[in-house]
Amino acid sequence: MSVRENQRLQLQPLSIPSRLLLGPGPSNAHPAVLQAMNTPPVGHLDPTFFTVMDEIQSLLRYAWQTENPFTIAVSGTGTSAMEATIANVTEPGDVVLVGVIGYFGNRLVDMAERYGADVRIITKPWGQVFSLEELQTALKTHRPAILALVHAETSSGACQPLEGVGQLCREFDCLLLIDTVTSLGGVPIFLDEWDVDLAYSCSQKGLSCPPGASPLTISPRAWKKLQQRQTKVTNFYLDMTLLSKYWGSDRVYHHTAPINMYYALREALRLLSQEGIENSWQRHRQNAEYLWQQLQDLGLTLHVEREYRLPTLTTVRIPEGIDGKAIARQLLLEHGIEIGSGLGELAGKVWRIGLMGFNSRKENVDKLVTALKQVLSKSI
Amino acid sequence: MSVRENQRLQLQPLSIPSRLLLGPGPSNAHPAVLQAMNTPPVGHLDPTFFTVMDEIQSLLRYAWQTENPFTIAVSGTGTSAMEATIANVTEPGDVVLVGVIGYFGNRLVDMAERYGADVRIITKPWGQVFSLEELQTALKTHRPAILALVHAETSSGACQPLEGVGQLCREFDCLLLIDTVTSLGGVPIFLDEWDVDLAYSCSQKGLSCPPGASPLTISPRAWKKLQQRQTKVTNFYLDMTLLSKYWGSDRVYHHTAPINMYYALREALRLLSQEGIENSWQRHRQNAEYLWQQLQDLGLTLHVEREYRLPTLTTVRIPEGIDGKAIARQLLLEHGIEIGSGLGELAGKVWRIGLMGFNSRKENVDKLVTALKQVLSKSI
Repeated sequence: MSVRENQRLQLQPLSIPSRLLLGPGPSNAHPAVLQAMNTPPVGHLDPTFFTVMDEIQSLLRYAWQTENPFTIAVSGTGTSAMEATIANVTEPGDVVLVGVIGYFGNRLVDMAERYGADVRIITKPWGQVFSLEELQTALKTHRPAILALVHAETSSGACQPLEGVGQLCREFDCLLLIDTVTSLGGVPIFLDEWDVDLAYSCSQKGLSCPPGASPLTISPRAWKKLQQRQTKVTNFYLDMTLLSKYWGSDRVYHHTAPINMYYALREALRLLSQEGIENSWQRHRQNAEYLWQQLQDLGLTLHVEREYRLPTLTTVRIPEGIDGKAIARQLLLEHGIEIGSGLGELAGKVWRIGLMGFNSRKENVDKLVTALKQVLSKSI
Repeated sequence: MSVRENQRLQLQPLSIPSRLLLGPGPSNAHPAVLQAMNTPPVGHLDPTFFTVMDEIQSLLRYAWQTENPFTIAVSGTGTSAMEATIANVTEPGDVVLVGVIGYFGNRLVDMAERYGADVRIITKPWGQVFSLEELQTALKTHRPAILALVHAETSSGACQPLEGVGQLCREFDCLLLIDTVTSLGGVPIFLDEWDVDLAYSCSQKGLSCPPGASPLTISPRAWKKLQQRQTKVTNFYLDMTLLSKYWGSDRVYHHTAPINMYYALREALRLLSQEGIENSWQRHRQNAEYLWQQLQDLGLTLHVEREYRLPTLTTVRIPEGIDGKAIARQLLLEHGIEIGSGLGELAGKVWRIGLMGFNSRKENVDKLVTALKQVLSKSI
């Protein structure tokens, strides 16, 4: 047999333009995180690497304010951690109640259906959130085994209040599963005080790390449900029973971890701990408020009511007569700034502006607002 | 609510010792690959990133010698790409015949069972391979929808010959699925000439890249089975129908890709194309033969018959009376060299020595043999 030489490409080394990533994520990585990621890999069974894993677990518990023993990073991006929560605790026939306030609520519905759940849905227009009373009524009606909510809905920019929800779930003997993809590190989270049972996140937003390793935590209460499963999890890669033997003291090989991503995540979490989680929340809040003021000064309208607005991700209504995608493209290609377009219900209606992790800085707001002003003035 | 300050760790920046990784993987990454990985991330919907994705697809087709349009990298490590093949083409009740010649054959069995397959198994002692006649008999007996074989069995060091197997599978109207985790880049593979329908690999072995993005290819024949599914794939993250809309011209968001891992993989594949795939195969062969000679000169016995021995991964029998794990530990801690221990049937019986990608160099063989001689002489 002979090799097809016509398939052999001769390419130049990678050449990537510099971007300021102010969309819904990824956000720019912290330079120290990129540097840590660049450390030559060791083996996934190297004692040095086990130390890195242990540190990631401790640092994640602090970031989430939880004492859950099972707190790890999944070897994939945020969607894989989301799927890990659903796949492990859902058994065919389980009633799973999903609160849909945007795109990622719908994704939870899709996943829960794939794993055989009897899915029930409650919805709100994108940009709004559920009241405690609405959740209580839904729990009464559906009596679910799991209530899944999105804390920070990346598609709408709304922050679902969670105080009291976990307590309700205990009353109805139901697990509380929450999406903190766009809140971890940037928005106050108190997993244990809120009685949350399962949560997941990503690395590339509030944590200032590239995407590729994703936080996941499971409470002892949820772990019990996992242990009582009648069937194996229909997912080998994300089977947490197997993975607990690798992350725990047994150190049994399950799959090769993305070593360098864990180096990066460890550094990102270390920097968060160094700053202090409360300081980070406050920084995100301050810079978001500055952004909101600047956008309103430009005559733009913010989509979400102030009380429920995420400090990490702001949805801005596209003014009538403006081609939102064209503006975003101009910002990217002429100013090197990425912002996001709307998804689903909000497609064509909003831009999504992220100020997350390392990127949540006043100077970035100024850069964006200056560029946006320029681009908008040309398009009117 | 107040933050638990007692959870706040103050850690030092990452400090990782330098290791020569001569185990079953990960292998050391090429310095140029680490450098490419360190490029600040752009967004997963950035036109620049789409170019990177297109280049990865073309470069992968060359590495595998295939023209399969659907040839991508999965956003996880090798096990996730393995699961992607099984999850997408297996429907409940499908007869899946797995040829087990080691640990990773058993993993295929486990996965296929999770996705509802009617799994049939043929086995060989670890270190041996199937003959074409044996495979033909098994196909006749079981009439499977899919035959899954491990081309390069990382646990045993054996290379399953594949010439003629694909043709047999066509006769029996069955798809051929193969594991090339430890062969891609280092061992001759001619996917199209061999009529292979599904293959997967990893980044951290023959490709000299850190782990985290894993090659996957699906033939038009297998794609047809996927399109005719009666049920959704029980795996959202690895649903290739959805992912084909992101990797194809639609560019529909599915999940955030591990951007920097793709930078790294693109550079790794670029270097492979620059070297030429045949030159890389030859280099792996030459250095493996040099290693085999050196090990035999030390009085050690190689586990696999020469004809079926992998050039990327050599299993060496641990001499009687020697504590294999202690030797491996000494190599790691005193000489900074990682080699692997045996798994399953071969636990305690062999060491596994990898010469893969960037690490397949004569000087690395010399370093290992010198250290091994020293460590062994102390232990006798």
